[in-house]
Amino acid sequence: MLDKTPATKLNALLETFGGALTRGDIDAAVDCFQDDCYWRDLVAFTWNIKTLEGKDQVRAMLEAQLAATGPSNWAAAEGEAATETDGLIDGWISFETKVARGFGHIRVKNGKIWTLLTTMAELKGHEEKAGFTRPMGAKHGSGPNRRTWKEEREEETAELGFSRQPYCVIIGGGQGGIALGARLKQLGVPTIIIERNERPGDSWRKRYKSLCLHDPVWYDHLPYIDFPKNWPVFSPKDKIGDWLEMYAKVMELNYWSSTEARSASYDETAKEWTVVVERGGKQIVLKPKQLVLATGMSGRPNLPTFPGMEKFKGDQHHSSKHPGPDAYAGKKAVVVGSNNSAHDICAALCEAGADVTMVQRSSTHIVRSDTLMDIGLGALYSEQAVRNGITTAKADLIFASVPYKILHAFQIPLYKQMKERDAAFYDGLEKAGFMLDWGDDGSGLFMKYLRRGSGYYIDVGASQLIIDGKIKLKSGSDVAEITEDAVVLKDGTRLPADVIVYATGYGSMNGWAAELISQEVADKVGKCWGLGSSTTKDPGPWEGEQRNMWKPTQQEALWFHGGNLHQSRHYSQFLALQLKARQEGIPTPVYGLQAVHHLR
Amino acid sequence: MLDKTPATKLNALLETFGGALTRGDIDAAVDCFQDDCYWRDLVAFTWNIKTLEGKDQVRAMLEAQLAATGPSNWAAAEGEAATETDGLIDGWISFETKVARGFGHIRVKNGKIWTLLTTMAELKGHEEKAGFTRPMGAKHGSGPNRRTWKEEREEETAELGFSRQPYCVIIGGGQGGIALGARLKQLGVPTIIIERNERPGDSWRKRYKSLCLHDPVWYDHLPYIDFPKNWPVFSPKDKIGDWLEMYAKVMELNYWSSTEARSASYDETAKEWTVVVERGGKQIVLKPKQLVLATGMSGRPNLPTFPGMEKFKGDQHHSSKHPGPDAYAGKKAVVVGSNNSAHDICAALCEAGADVTMVQRSSTHIVRSDTLMDIGLGALYSEQAVRNGITTAKADLIFASVPYKILHAFQIPLYKQMKERDAAFYDGLEKAGFMLDWGDDGSGLFMKYLRRGSGYYIDVGASQLIIDGKIKLKSGSDVAEITEDAVVLKDGTRLPADVIVYATGYGSMNGWAAELISQEVADKVGKCWGLGSSTTKDPGPWEGEQRNMWKPTQQEALWFHGGNLHQSRHYSQFLALQLKARQEGIPTPVYGLQAVHHLR
Repeated sequence: MLDKTPATKLNALLETFGGALTRGDIDAAVDCFQDDCYWRDLVAFTWNIKTLEGKDQVRAMLEAQLAATGPSNWAAAEGEAATETDGLIDGWISFETKVARGFGHIRVKNGKIWTLLTTMAELKGHEEKAGFTRPMGAKHGSGPNRRTWKEEREEETAELGFSRQPYCVIIGGGQGGIALGARLKQLGVPTIIIERNERPGDSWRKRYKSLCLHDPVWYDHLPYIDFPKNWPVFSPKDKIGDWLEMYAKVMELNYWSSTEARSASYDETAKEWTVVVERGGKQIVLKPKQLVLATGMSGRPNLPTFPGMEKFKGDQHHSSKHPGPDAYAGKKAVVVGSNNSAHDICAALCEAGADVTMVQRSSTHIVRSDTLMDIGLGALYSEQAVRNGITTAKADLIFASVPYKILHAFQIPLYKQMKERDAAFYDGLEKAGFMLDWGDDGSGLFMKYLRRGSGYYIDVGASQLIIDGKIKLKSGSDVAEITEDAVVLKDGTRLPADVIVYATGYGSMNGWAAELISQEVADKVGKCWGLGSSTTKDPGPWEGEQRNMWKPTQQEALWFHGGNLHQSRHYSQFLALQLKARQEGIPTPVYGLQAVHHLR
Repeated sequence: MLDKTPATKLNALLETFGGALTRGDIDAAVDCFQDDCYWRDLVAFTWNIKTLEGKDQVRAMLEAQLAATGPSNWAAAEGEAATETDGLIDGWISFETKVARGFGHIRVKNGKIWTLLTTMAELKGHEEKAGFTRPMGAKHGSGPNRRTWKEEREEETAELGFSRQPYCVIIGGGQGGIALGARLKQLGVPTIIIERNERPGDSWRKRYKSLCLHDPVWYDHLPYIDFPKNWPVFSPKDKIGDWLEMYAKVMELNYWSSTEARSASYDETAKEWTVVVERGGKQIVLKPKQLVLATGMSGRPNLPTFPGMEKFKGDQHHSSKHPGPDAYAGKKAVVVGSNNSAHDICAALCEAGADVTMVQRSSTHIVRSDTLMDIGLGALYSEQAVRNGITTAKADLIFASVPYKILHAFQIPLYKQMKERDAAFYDGLEKAGFMLDWGDDGSGLFMKYLRRGSGYYIDVGASQLIIDGKIKLKSGSDVAEITEDAVVLKDGTRLPADVIVYATGYGSMNGWAAELISQEVADKVGKCWGLGSSTTKDPGPWEGEQRNMWKPTQQEALWFHGGNLHQSRHYSQFLALQLKARQEGIPTPVYGLQAVHHLR
């Protein structure tokens, strides 16, 4: 038996596991897992986004879901060879359920499953029309009054939302709404996207002028149309804006720009939303069955309430309203905050010739962009990864296959490497008085992003300006008060200011639900984002998945979609399939709907 | 030696061939070819698009070009295994010249080269910034007054054509101009595209409403951004219009829409064009070094001069001006012509409820779209081909590797198959009185396209309307005269008409040069298109390549670019490299500049 290949071993295990599931033999199925095990399911078994940790949770899920799910045809995925390294077998798998086809990833130790990822790829009978089944376009043959593509598009535009109701309304037409809208279009789910800006991409265009994506191109593809090979690594904001605009157009989204969502309420009896929007000066009432808030993972701006703010005679605004540096050349600027926005704004003001002071109230995690690319993302999202055959789809699934419970353990050594590689840089920052941290457990940037969505800066140049004293730094003291012309800190420092920027972050996404629907519904669904890691700004209990994101919430038919381009791409697949199943009346028994522990 | 693999055999041959070329041993190099041999070169050796037929032509070319070209590093292309079928070895090759890297294809029989394709892939030191070398986008670090992507784009737009002259001007912003413009942009050749319509894609949008591409999606990709997998097989005209518009935008082309080219003249001393265009009511004078006419392979409309045309009281127009069928419901329409446009227009008129008669003056080649897809294109351009690993780039090169001299021999059996498969269909057409042909030598549609660019219809439904008598047919008689209200044929038939459409084709592309530059220059460059096959409408002598297309002409710095989406994609690569080399002052000794045998 010593000469068994990884493929043979994997096939044998899948046969045992699949056989047990088919027989309904939950004991035998659970016995395929090692004690220390994780099963992450994206919609296929749980109609939820859920990680089962340990055999007891696996057993409980199977007891609840196995009969309804009816999984079958477990196999190594076609064309993918399992590999074995240091006794760990790693492989791609495919399977089916009663209603869907699935794809996944497995890690096996000592013949037992350590990690299992199961994802829903497509609903049977509702496959996307693509590749061999793509639409014909031309209607060959002839018939009187047959309509053209253009006439059909115009008819859809004229009818949807008026004489015919969309099944789904997405509030927010940024990358999240656009990616989800594209998937729903392909699945034939009538959808309207509501966006207050004039053009798709404006949510990027309208930000400060030096903004570029902080994530590299390989991480940023939208579904269906990849960025071309000449696309820059870090897309400038206006360029990504143009891409989103063209994408919304060629993917034929029903995109209502210059439209404001005014209110939404759910009729629990009719199972229908009433969404009031204002478009072209008129109120329009939409009656979708599903409502998605894709208004940005950041939620509403946190504007602080410092004593004396009302007296300030210069400009003061939250970072989300910052108009860019051009008006502030030669002026004194104080930026309160020390995360990404604060750094970007300070650098732009500094370059434009303003006298800038950053007020750092608490420690910040800094990683240099190049280093993050090389060490943090390179294995999955880089030109080399593409060369190595790691397509974006595969990278997404590999990333998804590592359970959040243990992800920090994989991250800590990477950030140790980064710290060593850039030791001189960090020394310089500390000498400048900058308060650094690496996350509560040293697990760095990505865990901070998942846990709290804040607390870091990906350095693209501002840190050197701080080291060089070109951006002045006041750290370790909070704001005491704002006067007519200055920010006064608790340590007595007075920072004269013509402009104050409050780069003080954002609230939870359920704030948008409070604004649009009601505080009651916002409280019912509770805080969005965060894993429950009991680290700073991510209170427990442990959830194991992002709260409320891309999955059912405590409010029926209300969904939250958001995050960076990677998450917009990846999770839109699973949210779209959940919505499509509901549209088609396919049973979607949700397992393990999360409880609410925090209101915001 | 019997157990040699195809790879070993190919490597040995390439070593012999490459060695001979390196030593300048032309005898030995020519000896690597079999007597019946073809070497097709796209720019790499000849700075021309040229097929050398037989050893004498190969020898003559090498004698003229070898020293200047300096080829080296002949090898089987990385990652591509040669194959052997019935004694024919087939393989991908790579090589270098002094100034470029090349890629090609080879077929070997009995140890000697039967066909060789050499293409220039990139100029050394002027490689496109893509993949590992893609631009960073974000400018990390900082500096006062550094400009954003948007500011740089705005500056380029404001300057180019005004304070700074483009190196190249492309007249015509359809698929040809757009594809070439995209490649030149990537190569850093400052270019302006002149287009009279308001928006990119309008040359499609403005055609009759039921128009769809007659070629399938796999054949139609533009450079850099493939159509997505959900894109229809046959793109409706407005959808391809939207795609072209978005493409021009995201590829950052300097696209001057709503602009008319008024005149152009070349200063042989200054080596510079003076191109006068009208934009926004103002005349602007451009001074490019290179001028490309990408005004459509079709040239100017051929409007016939039938006696009495001036007396006709209804609408009459060339097919290129046909507004679509909507105004003609219940009216009598006569369409003179029986090729693609005539069929499409007849079908649309018929569907809209007009009483339509097609006047067929000479025989037409008809192929059903499905059949053409399956038998004619399927091996190279289809979902199955993609599945089989035939990328579009590979398909283009495989297609390019078959010399035009023998291409008809590969085509004839395909069209025999088509004729058999659709025998009942062709019977029906003949019973309806339709005059059919299969090209002079039975080689069918693609050869007709290459030889004369006309004489066929890809059936998407109109033929059945003819078979069924829904489109009335008058065949075998030419037009005698037009009266106030009818078309009268030479056989005496009188066809009452409210509208007459002259689907009478187009002239040669050098007609555009006559219009824009002068009749003298148009005559100097001579007829465009056609192979010189001495078949109908493609007079000899044999050229072996499309006349004047994508390659140097008798008029210095004047180029013609056009054709279907496939040709726009494929040949724009070689035209762009020719232009880039000239911009950089790289020597471009042209071998075998074609002589002029026909003026139009």
